[in-house]
Amino acid sequence: MAHDPLAHVRDLFDLDDDVVYLDGNSLGAPPKAVAGRVRDVVERQWGRRLIRSWSEGWWEAPERVGNRIGRLVGAAPGQVVVADSTSVNLFKALMAAVRNTDRSEIVVDAGTFPTDGYIARSVAELTGLALRPAPPEELDLRDTTAVVLLNHVDYRTGRLLDMAALTRQAHEVGAKVVWDLCHSAGVLPIELDALEVDLAVGCTYKFLNGGPGSPAFLYVPRNAQHAFEQPLTGWTGHEVPFAMSAEYTPDPGVSRARVGTPDILSMLALDAALDVWDDVSLADVRAKGLALTGHFMRLVEGLPGIGVLTPSDEWRGHQVSLRHPDARRLVEELAERQVLGDHRPPDVLRFGFAPLYNTFDEAERAAAILKELL
Amino acid sequence: MAHDPLAHVRDLFDLDDDVVYLDGNSLGAPPKAVAGRVRDVVERQWGRRLIRSWSEGWWEAPERVGNRIGRLVGAAPGQVVVADSTSVNLFKALMAAVRNTDRSEIVVDAGTFPTDGYIARSVAELTGLALRPAPPEELDLRDTTAVVLLNHVDYRTGRLLDMAALTRQAHEVGAKVVWDLCHSAGVLPIELDALEVDLAVGCTYKFLNGGPGSPAFLYVPRNAQHAFEQPLTGWTGHEVPFAMSAEYTPDPGVSRARVGTPDILSMLALDAALDVWDDVSLADVRAKGLALTGHFMRLVEGLPGIGVLTPSDEWRGHQVSLRHPDARRLVEELAERQVLGDHRPPDVLRFGFAPLYNTFDEAERAAAILKELL
Repeated sequence: MAHDPLAHVRDLFDLDDDVVYLDGNSLGAPPKAVAGRVRDVVERQWGRRLIRSWSEGWWEAPERVGNRIGRLVGAAPGQVVVADSTSVNLFKALMAAVRNTDRSEIVVDAGTFPTDGYIARSVAELTGLALRPAPPEELDLRDTTAVVLLNHVDYRTGRLLDMAALTRQAHEVGAKVVWDLCHSAGVLPIELDALEVDLAVGCTYKFLNGGPGSPAFLYVPRNAQHAFEQPLTGWTGHEVPFAMSAEYTPDPGVSRARVGTPDILSMLALDAALDVWDDVSLADVRAKGLALTGHFMRLVEGLPGIGVLTPSDEWRGHQVSLRHPDARRLVEELAERQVLGDHRPPDVLRFGFAPLYNTFDEAERAAAILKELL
Repeated sequence: MAHDPLAHVRDLFDLDDDVVYLDGNSLGAPPKAVAGRVRDVVERQWGRRLIRSWSEGWWEAPERVGNRIGRLVGAAPGQVVVADSTSVNLFKALMAAVRNTDRSEIVVDAGTFPTDGYIARSVAELTGLALRPAPPEELDLRDTTAVVLLNHVDYRTGRLLDMAALTRQAHEVGAKVVWDLCHSAGVLPIELDALEVDLAVGCTYKFLNGGPGSPAFLYVPRNAQHAFEQPLTGWTGHEVPFAMSAEYTPDPGVSRARVGTPDILSMLALDAALDVWDDVSLADVRAKGLALTGHFMRLVEGLPGIGVLTPSDEWRGHQVSLRHPDARRLVEELAERQVLGDHRPPDVLRFGFAPLYNTFDEAERAAAILKELL
């Protein structure tokens, strides 16, 4: 393969060389910096400084770490907060998006990751709007559409949507758009500010490597923050939380999207994990992701019984999804041979390629073992 | 002081002996077991086992750790789940409590911790019910009251409410009751099942020592689970999450209160922290808490300018709240002398006594230094 400008980055990860880890689109591998940072949080920050640590960096961590993610998704500082789960952030985003609307429907990507559809249904029921699932290529947005919720990369097929075109499509009819960046944040150039995206959410435990269940993020652009009103009015979103006042006055900025006390262990594990991007160009990451997935697809195309679900053009994320009637068994047998991918029922095998740590050699080893098993 | 049956438990905590830590009601001190457990989670479970750990104990952690907390609050297994923050759980609990009600009001403790009042207000606005703040001694519950939300221990004064009597009072008019156990879970005998409490929430980072921002818990009694419907319908509350089906079907049990992917680092830090209760009797914990707070109150009563807010009878939790016009300065000067309490504006000094690690000697050192400062 061509020169890999990210080859040295793998050394920043704590990964066994005998494992071919192709599930970073589900749970990213741990950057080496995480273990030491977490130890410091537990033993020094919590153990020695105790309650004092809240005023020594903990309280502002959701905004500070949010800014680091903002840099990876094209958001200027002060517009991203790290808090809660993706599902909870979707609820906040959709409730805020339809608040005071005179429009009558929410549109959701028909092939969405389930939680997005479930939360959209719940918001529709709470607010009396209709929910209309639609395929991204036929969204049929109208002047009755309040908001459309789209997954940037389809979790099942790996298809990448055209954020610029679809955001424009929504805005042309006066609808808002909420982007779910779970499968794209950190591994593709994203330009939330430049595209004037209305709201975005994403998780941090996939390609951002924050650790299992690490807190999610929410983007609220500055000019929309004053109107961002959501029903999870927890005390940490208050303008002056420690005034302990009886009335809720939301923070004027993105902190109004905070709810309860931030989860510091996981937040600062994520903070440490984000260090791997310090000297990395997202253009290099994207180029390597396309090269890795392309190489793997070429190696497995035509294997007996295998169908390729992932687009072969550039409109794909960094996963390759294959179909095979025995998908579950194959994923299990691959795991026995130290190739870790995952299975999505009924018949999909998913292989995630994390450009920061996966190698072309790994793509070849995985393809060779799959070929043997078939 | 009398023999302390819990004296040996302090050795289970990683605390400096030159610090008098009286803020465990805000952030509990770290049990020694936490550091090693978290290291194992990061380095072995995440680093070596990677995605496989989800099926090696992670997925069920919210219910398993929930059962451990259940044992401390009088809940039989299968009724407590650890997830999200207290604020988010309050939202679920109140939304579920008023669903399909034909009653017209929510009542909330007028002196509640702010987040409870904010979330109650939000639920009232979403559902069209009225919100009526009322002092616990004059709740004036009626046949129009859908639900009453009460703090078991008042965060400001340390007053303990009579859970049995107030729960009965609610049930007599056919209202539900939601108890916030943030300041009582783990340090007082609580009998949720026996008292037929409708719903309860609590945080785990105070007297349960789960670590900064560790996930909160939610109690839904078994006979109410089938009717527990809440709008945060995230995928992990689904009956068969990995079927990835388009329609949301809630889990038949308490797992329907789950939302997004559980936060494993913090969840398993909490799990390790809970080990300290393995050989401890809650009756001993309660007796020591009353003795510690009583001893401290006797030592500071009558100091110049000091008023005692905390009840002197047994209707108190394990904190002592004092009033003084210079409360903020005093808390700062105490901290300079290694006595850590906290300040609640405008004029309250709070001292939490965690029976598992605080000592009578510490109560005396804190009182002596306060006396010097005055």
